[in-house]
Amino acid sequence: MAAVNWYPLPVASSEAGGRVFADLMRLAEVVEPGQPGWTRRVFTPEYLQSRELVWELMVSSGLEVRRDPAGNLIGTLRGTDAGLPALVLGSHTDTVAGGGRFDGPCGVMAAIEAVRRIREGGVRPRRTVWVVDFLGEEPNDFGISCVGSRAAAGHLSREHLQLVDRGGRTLAEALAQMGGDPDRIAEARWRAGAASAYLELHVEQGARLEEAARRLAVVTAIAGIHRAEIRLEGRADHAGTTPMDRRRDALLAAAEVSLEVERLGRRKGLGVATVGRLELEPNSPNVVAERATLIAEYRSGDRGWLSATDELLQELVQKVPARRGVRGQLTWLSREDPTVCSEELRSVLRASAREIGEEPLELASWAGHDAVQVATACPVAMLFVPSRGGRSHCPEEWTDPEQVEVGTRALAAAATRLAG
Amino acid sequence: MAAVNWYPLPVASSEAGGRVFADLMRLAEVVEPGQPGWTRRVFTPEYLQSRELVWELMVSSGLEVRRDPAGNLIGTLRGTDAGLPALVLGSHTDTVAGGGRFDGPCGVMAAIEAVRRIREGGVRPRRTVWVVDFLGEEPNDFGISCVGSRAAAGHLSREHLQLVDRGGRTLAEALAQMGGDPDRIAEARWRAGAASAYLELHVEQGARLEEAARRLAVVTAIAGIHRAEIRLEGRADHAGTTPMDRRRDALLAAAEVSLEVERLGRRKGLGVATVGRLELEPNSPNVVAERATLIAEYRSGDRGWLSATDELLQELVQKVPARRGVRGQLTWLSREDPTVCSEELRSVLRASAREIGEEPLELASWAGHDAVQVATACPVAMLFVPSRGGRSHCPEEWTDPEQVEVGTRALAAAATRLAG
Repeated sequence: MAAVNWYPLPVASSEAGGRVFADLMRLAEVVEPGQPGWTRRVFTPEYLQSRELVWELMVSSGLEVRRDPAGNLIGTLRGTDAGLPALVLGSHTDTVAGGGRFDGPCGVMAAIEAVRRIREGGVRPRRTVWVVDFLGEEPNDFGISCVGSRAAAGHLSREHLQLVDRGGRTLAEALAQMGGDPDRIAEARWRAGAASAYLELHVEQGARLEEAARRLAVVTAIAGIHRAEIRLEGRADHAGTTPMDRRRDALLAAAEVSLEVERLGRRKGLGVATVGRLELEPNSPNVVAERATLIAEYRSGDRGWLSATDELLQELVQKVPARRGVRGQLTWLSREDPTVCSEELRSVLRASAREIGEEPLELASWAGHDAVQVATACPVAMLFVPSRGGRSHCPEEWTDPEQVEVGTRALAAAATRLAG
Repeated sequence: MAAVNWYPLPVASSEAGGRVFADLMRLAEVVEPGQPGWTRRVFTPEYLQSRELVWELMVSSGLEVRRDPAGNLIGTLRGTDAGLPALVLGSHTDTVAGGGRFDGPCGVMAAIEAVRRIREGGVRPRRTVWVVDFLGEEPNDFGISCVGSRAAAGHLSREHLQLVDRGGRTLAEALAQMGGDPDRIAEARWRAGAASAYLELHVEQGARLEEAARRLAVVTAIAGIHRAEIRLEGRADHAGTTPMDRRRDALLAAAEVSLEVERLGRRKGLGVATVGRLELEPNSPNVVAERATLIAEYRSGDRGWLSATDELLQELVQKVPARRGVRGQLTWLSREDPTVCSEELRSVLRASAREIGEEPLELASWAGHDAVQVATACPVAMLFVPSRGGRSHCPEEWTDPEQVEVGTRALAAAATRLAG
């Protein structure tokens, strides 16, 4: 690893405003061919290639860069006091299929820019700063998300590494193809006390900032996500010869369960609930559906709301299909608690926002983030910048350059305070 | 074609009862390997092979057999008066995937047996009798049903012949593989006035005979079937960050439309309505569904009920999804009127049933049949025998041997009356 000398970067501050946005647009050029929007999924050659650009940006910003065994890119700005735990800034650069240019990259580019500005300030910080581009935050074909941050927090197990995608490849093999070293995955885990705090800037992916005409939010908590698979078993019958009152129709049972899940999501304004996936058998126009399998997912920043919803869901899966002679069965796929952001870090973020003339909203995050994993290793907090129309995970995902700049300035101000 | 001499068959009447059932069980041995139940789909090698047995049974029953350009097997028993239009008895011997042993073959075997009994009666009829094993009555990969009877009625078009299955084969090619001659398809059409009447025995595929403890039904009408594709277009949104009241959820719109279609089917007890097929995009657990495509099908013997249902369906496709900001669009796939069975033929069937000591029910058929196609070429009527538990299109499909025999005797008696 080449040693990097400490010196302020020769960049005029008038150019600073456009740098993060320009970096984002450069990264957006590296996408999978033939895919809609800006698609750069983890474990693709294009993702691997895009990270050469991230590496290069880190190096040119004065960071010492390494790739850990989980495939995370870690850029280090050494502080004057090597005994202090590091301040970590990060996010991810992979996208969903048909995604946009901001979800993830915005946080990585802002973190790199924050380091540039610390250096431009000319005062070397006491605390070491890490900028992390976590590997594969979005859900992948192996069925898990947050691969890199999971490993950093020590939550990527041997069982995870043996997960297999549709092509028969193991997660271990896929990680190796991304430059990781699955045999040494335990070494990706941050040592206890190695990190003092984790800050992540991200696009809101909702429309609350836009509706309030604000440019910044401090995240209070990240919603816990519960997912349950619901299997409904009725009876396949001839769609002509079976009278309406003799049917055990799994599709209609699934329709009722889905509408009930929506009602659960509307309770008290404390959560959301979705059925996004539903599969039917035999799925034939002239056969009454025999089986339906759906996934109900619900999210809340309120732990009590989530556990109450668990109970209501279990109850309705027993009762609602039974009225039609359809048998309902529920299997939990995951039940993650909400992640509460550090009150201390939130007050630093609030102060930093005010320092640059912004009064931030206080918002809960309804999407999962790398910060959820990292929260078991150190205190975490997040900043949100606006998403136009609340759109995300789609090509229309957009944040204005000046909104990116405001977020970057607040992140840089907070990092300067925390790095000392 | 070998000439067949007219003579009574040397079969003792005590054996007659078991013959049809034995023929059915022999045919059931020819099935596709590795498929559930008794699967013998049109355009498979096993179907082609099974018809050698049908051919053989026709020949040994004294019929002159030929295959027409549509692949129909036609066995002819020449009457004494060549100038009279023929009496036609028939059904089909193909099955659905995972089907049973009775839907179709029961009618073909009973028709062959009816001819045997006419011949055993020792009096050669005045009218020529055709026994027809129509090619491919069940829905196939080309998206149409009743291929052979459609051709006999002159409804198999050049466009139909160019339909392509998943493997890229045209219907014309598939027909040729079954011994048909697609270039001469027009010759499969029955000449005007060639047929005087068509009788088809079939299993009920419902439980009304069983519930009424009767063994025979005379079919009053065959339900018309209307099918509509309904496309629902909402908006793909993040399942976490999109508040419940900001969603345009196509899955929930499809759930409501499906439940409304059920309500339409329950109106007045005159019909049935089903949504058996529903496809979603992107069908991902953490994305609000953008698109849903479902097929609504409904059936009735009552033309007024069908057209009223058309209107109610169109109305609800406009109104119900719109409440969620989802756009609904309806495309008719098919709208077949009910087929009314000939009153004259029904009275012959009733009299024939009473002649053998059975008081038949009068039932509408909720399933489609070859008779629907044939009805445009000559008057048609049908006899139903019971289906145990009303089950059909499944391996459990069953009709007792004595029920098959009762049906066969009534068909033979009616054929004897009509052939003169």
